[in-house]
Amino acid sequence: MHLAETQIESGAAVQRSDEISPSQGWSAVLCVAEPERGAFFPASTLQRLEARCDVRIVDRQVLDSAHGFAQSFDGVQIAITSWGFPSLSAERLVLAPQLRLVTHTGSSVKFLVTDEFWTSGVRISQAGAAMAASVAELSLAFTLALLRRIPEQDHALHDGSEWQVARTARRGVEIAGARVGVVGASRTGRSYVERCQALGADVLVHDPYLRHDDPLSDRSATLESLLASCDVVAIHAPLTEESKGMLGRGQLASIRDGGVVVNTARSPLVDMDALYDEAASGRLDVALDVFDVEPLPPDDRWRALPNVLLTPHLGGASVQSRLRAGQIVVSEIERFISGRALEHEVHRPALERIG
Amino acid sequence: MHLAETQIESGAAVQRSDEISPSQGWSAVLCVAEPERGAFFPASTLQRLEARCDVRIVDRQVLDSAHGFAQSFDGVQIAITSWGFPSLSAERLVLAPQLRLVTHTGSSVKFLVTDEFWTSGVRISQAGAAMAASVAELSLAFTLALLRRIPEQDHALHDGSEWQVARTARRGVEIAGARVGVVGASRTGRSYVERCQALGADVLVHDPYLRHDDPLSDRSATLESLLASCDVVAIHAPLTEESKGMLGRGQLASIRDGGVVVNTARSPLVDMDALYDEAASGRLDVALDVFDVEPLPPDDRWRALPNVLLTPHLGGASVQSRLRAGQIVVSEIERFISGRALEHEVHRPALERIG
Repeated sequence: MHLAETQIESGAAVQRSDEISPSQGWSAVLCVAEPERGAFFPASTLQRLEARCDVRIVDRQVLDSAHGFAQSFDGVQIAITSWGFPSLSAERLVLAPQLRLVTHTGSSVKFLVTDEFWTSGVRISQAGAAMAASVAELSLAFTLALLRRIPEQDHALHDGSEWQVARTARRGVEIAGARVGVVGASRTGRSYVERCQALGADVLVHDPYLRHDDPLSDRSATLESLLASCDVVAIHAPLTEESKGMLGRGQLASIRDGGVVVNTARSPLVDMDALYDEAASGRLDVALDVFDVEPLPPDDRWRALPNVLLTPHLGGASVQSRLRAGQIVVSEIERFISGRALEHEVHRPALERIG
Repeated sequence: MHLAETQIESGAAVQRSDEISPSQGWSAVLCVAEPERGAFFPASTLQRLEARCDVRIVDRQVLDSAHGFAQSFDGVQIAITSWGFPSLSAERLVLAPQLRLVTHTGSSVKFLVTDEFWTSGVRISQAGAAMAASVAELSLAFTLALLRRIPEQDHALHDGSEWQVARTARRGVEIAGARVGVVGASRTGRSYVERCQALGADVLVHDPYLRHDDPLSDRSATLESLLASCDVVAIHAPLTEESKGMLGRGQLASIRDGGVVVNTARSPLVDMDALYDEAASGRLDVALDVFDVEPLPPDDRWRALPNVLLTPHLGGASVQSRLRAGQIVVSEIERFISGRALEHEVHRPALERIG
């Protein structure tokens, strides 16, 4: 049986019973591939989960067929999802009639939800809070490396260049006293601000949604003044229709010569062609964890630039981040089963802004 | 006239008059090559200096001949030195009979001083204090990069490896909560400790000279327990007869698998053959700013290791470090001319320990 063959029983697919406690106990489908599964759910976390519900570990491929999906979710109220989990369309929701809660181990749930999902009554929660410190630390590591021109020096030495050539990179700058511009007062952005300030940086923040009573409001700046006055531009904005392309060619051109740009957020926030040109000319140094196309092709142009630091989208993937995310997921399930309020639930209107 | 021809007037060479104020005003030889001279002494710092003494900018090569040396130091009481300044031997001291103060823009003055220097009555001061924050920041940048396995990922992406290959590096670790072992409670070591603690690291310090009333004494550990328990080993000890080779093959072997070693201090503190073996096997990741042979030869073995981050001995060379050093030098000269105590004077007994 394939999805196309499935007859949608409208109503059954989209409306859930208000009844919370199942007659036959709680069950959860856990669909996270190794090695991530072990990183999120080490024995101690898995035991906490199993103390509250029957855990059914399901391979992602099994969910491709309607038969596999229906069988996996037979009598199951809870789904624990990861990247690559299939979208929760009407066709799939009808195959999981008992589903009440989706807990996502990652941050963005946009690929999971559909119009039918939002009207179905199934609730959804995510573990993005686990990642903020991890992404902020990567962004800080990028910042320190670029301020000291480490990528250019390290690449020169690894490429066999003469010592004196490696020493001709721009002179390094200390973060203590440097002006660091943070685009986006997101959870990650705030975590990054704290770390930069702890090291003595002079931080400016641009976020159109920053409230006047926000502790960061005295560091608030327009995007224009931030770009024109900062040594570092660190991008921590969510990706929305409004924020897409916010750092265009003109904005990037207004960053001072020798400035550095760090992006551990989302690549469509930036005109990547313009950023590439600035890096290739040597005017700006750049560090990237996110790209327009992922996986980054082996011959991608970014790989050839010596003054660019590259990591393969692992900002949120630290050991500690994974452990925290697994704990958040289990805590949310515990709250749900006990009928308590969720702490990381995603609601439709908010999704437009959190990206 | 060459040095070999110079007749040494013993006594004149080694004993200076107690008279401080010169009859014809103060003069200083400034022997620092560009671009470092401009980095240490921008216009504002040079103006401060010129307000107190006549400044004679001298090329290093001029000092190679006895004639050039004697002419440069004719009537000069103060020398401002940098790396590569000739050793102050009896032969040279006799050519600078008015010399009373040497102010070194760098840290180690061992290459400058001789037995004859110490008995001559000329005083010597250095600007190492300017570098501590700069070296500590580089060490922190190294630490964050290695904990997150950035070098291995970045090198894989730059070398054209598949995205998934770049993602197979060890999972990154956050510094918040990591155990960081600092070998040497030097000025730089302390500066590094402050930064690591500000980011939430759990710091241990090994230093045989740490006093019981030292603020760091509650973080004190033996070298053995530090190496066995830390995620990071950061070397900040001075190089002395006692500390040379303190991290031998056995010590390095006792660091846990996946540990990281950061050296921005001096290379002879470590058995570099053993460290190379640990890095080449992939057991330890390493970041180095200092090497057994500098300049590092183009075909040096360290350049070929993907899990190693390399910089060309620029730890103390930040923009801010250079500015601070120039200011320290001028302040020392101001103090000397006013007859006040120097703040950065080097005395012979201390030199054995500070390295």
